[in-house]
Amino acid sequence: MITLTSDFGLKDSYVAEMKAVILSINPSATIVDVTHCVEKFDIREGAFMLASAAPYFPNSTVHLEVVDPGVGTQRRAIVIETKKSFFVGPDNGVLILAAQAQEILHVYEIENSRFKLPRVSSTFQGRDVFAPAAAYLDLGEKAALFGPEITDPIRPSFTTVEEKGNTIVGEIISIDSFGNIITNIQAENLPNIQIKTIEAKLPKTELRLPFLQNYAQLKPHQPLVLIGSHDFLEIALNQGSAGEKYHVAKGDRVIFSITE
Amino acid sequence: MITLTSDFGLKDSYVAEMKAVILSINPSATIVDVTHCVEKFDIREGAFMLASAAPYFPNSTVHLEVVDPGVGTQRRAIVIETKKSFFVGPDNGVLILAAQAQEILHVYEIENSRFKLPRVSSTFQGRDVFAPAAAYLDLGEKAALFGPEITDPIRPSFTTVEEKGNTIVGEIISIDSFGNIITNIQAENLPNIQIKTIEAKLPKTELRLPFLQNYAQLKPHQPLVLIGSHDFLEIALNQGSAGEKYHVAKGDRVIFSITE
Amino acid sequence: MITLTSDFGLKDSYVAEMKAVILSINPSATIVDVTHCVEKFDIREGAFMLASAAPYFPNSTVHLEVVDPGVGTQRRAIVIETKKSFFVGPDNGVLILAAQAQEILHVYEIENSRFKLPRVSSTFQGRDVFAPAAAYLDLGEKAALFGPEITDPIRPSFTTVEEKGNTIVGEIISIDSFGNIITNIQAENLPNIQIKTIEAKLPKTELRLPFLQNYAQLKPHQPLVLIGSHDFLEIALNQGSAGEKYHVAKGDRVIFSITE
Repeated sequence: MITLTSDFGLKDSYVAEMKAVILSINPSATIVDVTHCVEKFDIREGAFMLASAAPYFPNSTVHLEVVDPGVGTQRRAIVIETKKSFFVGPDNGVLILAAQAQEILHVYEIENSRFKLPRVSSTFQGRDVFAPAAAYLDLGEKAALFGPEITDPIRPSFTTVEEKGNTIVGEIISIDSFGNIITNIQAENLPNIQIKTIEAKLPKTELRLPFLQNYAQLKPHQPLVLIGSHDFLEIALNQGSAGEKYHVAKGDRVIFSITE
Repeated sequence: MITLTSDFGLKDSYVAEMKAVILSINPSATIVDVTHCVEKFDIREGAFMLASAAPYFPNSTVHLEVVDPGVGTQRRAIVIETKKSFFVGPDNGVLILAAQAQEILHVYEIENSRFKLPRVSSTFQGRDVFAPAAAYLDLGEKAALFGPEITDPIRPSFTTVEEKGNTIVGEIISIDSFGNIITNIQAENLPNIQIKTIEAKLPKTELRLPFLQNYAQLKPHQPLVLIGSHDFLEIALNQGSAGEKYHVAKGDRVIFSITE
Repeated sequence: MITLTSDFGLKDSYVAEMKAVILSINPSATIVDVTHCVEKFDIREGAFMLASAAPYFPNSTVHLEVVDPGVGTQRRAIVIETKKSFFVGPDNGVLILAAQAQEILHVYEIENSRFKLPRVSSTFQGRDVFAPAAAYLDLGEKAALFGPEITDPIRPSFTTVEEKGNTIVGEIISIDSFGNIITNIQAENLPNIQIKTIEAKLPKTELRLPFLQNYAQLKPHQPLVLIGSHDFLEIALNQGSAGEKYHVAKGDRVIFSITE
């Protein structure tokens, strides 16, 4: 199975061209779109989308993502092999958040021209490099054949969470259409205690919030912290926009202090 | 075959998560999207979309729809078995319009945890309850195994058409992008006569309209009644917006009097 | 394999109804969406989208496109058989640009009711005529069985490029979201010489432009001519909108003079 994520939008034929290349090489591939509406060039949002969806796919799925402001430059094309599946895309961090949740085993640069289209354009490597790579991986070709192993894939700040006792330092990776503030912190980053209250330090405000299961446990417009359905920690208002109320932006730093 | 209809939109990864769950359980399922652009929480529009598409799918198709303002409350999750196929979703009426056109045989509440994900979130039952249910039904599991039969599924007003001789009372279920006023009345609700003229009583106006086969038989901006390609009765203006001209809204009552 | 292109948009259930019809006839068909966001009734844009995507699909693919302002009139429904694949849709030129790039062998009018739905609506031939035709072609039915061969399919002006020595006369077929001016001229229309400079005569301006491989070879806002990833000749500004700067519109004539 192959998943596709990109910032190509739904108007143009780019996504269809990638699917055509995949199905020409691997006619029985099952292809699932994650989304093609990532904000243009927003690596952080693209990373979040894939990290939300990837855990639900079966073992050996090949996840292809193209959010690629550096196309045509020297940035590398990579395959990441994890304990569970494969990730294909540019080496700019867009794959790492999803991949590291599955334990990364190896990262390879895609160099072997056997796994590329014969003619590689300078502007559309999604079709000419990443799509064939995904198709061949799904056919069972070994990731190690694609090129040299590398040990320094790009890891943007949002791929790291700092845990110091009951203090956790993370970053805002998305503000969804309801105004929920989604951080890069996941359930596994939390201390293994019965959490009642979380103090959150945002750039412009400090909050003391209840840690709850869902929105409806509160009065309208009351704030809370919860683990969303995507498994990331978020700050939300019941029936309101936390993002607007607390004046935050994607990339902002968040410091949480956990209390039993 | 499984169809998906929702109000999730095309930006987020929710639809992909449902597909991932379905394909993890049932790797060879064929999945077709009806639409994910139902207006948020609009049960009436969601019901119309599925009722338009369902008649064209083969026997035994499983239709999953999630337009679910009551997620996390006590509303039931249901499977409807008809003479032709299966419908899976919340018990709020979103499935009934499409299902009753195929003759409903049984309605079951989804309770059996064998057919749910191990961990059911309070905010995303589309992925955790409905997607696995659809996957198992498509694999051939009997609907009766999902939970107790119920006899009182929610039936909103738009699922009922009153026929009294040549008078038919219905409701506006959609106003499409051309401004056509689509009602919940179908060809089978009309008396079996050669219809020439229909009187339509709308909340703010009364009209006497020709009953025709298509728009082009009239001068521009002339109104008419016809059976649309979705098989519902609609009031239309040739090359104009009937919805704007007659100031109607979804949910408005319509009384038609039929004349030979 | 069957591809679908249309101006139906993503909100309504029309595309799903076409897929339902295809899969009812041909349950194992692989269906790929090219795009359903062609501007309503824009035959030129529809032709460009399909011509961009079609070259990447495998042999014997059936390409179905519905951009059909003339539905319900006397315009013909056609199947085009090329050396590589099949094209199904209305006879208004929307198929020709993609088809002629593969060498057209035969064009047939779809008349045989064996390959249509039993009940053909006057408003939705995509579902009732084109979808079944595509499904049967993909099953291996001979195109010659669909109806009489015709020799005069509609060929709008944008399907023709005039080559006179080093002068090439074409037409603007699209202006993409970046403002790039895309013409109907392809690499194969260019003289077989080492091109350095191209003079372009647009309706309101004459330009002398470098012919380059990609945008990044220039300073910001400098204009150039290049072959885009879709294989059509385009006039672009590095990091700017050529369409706005040169005040052009789809359908405008362009005269290029090539210099070594």
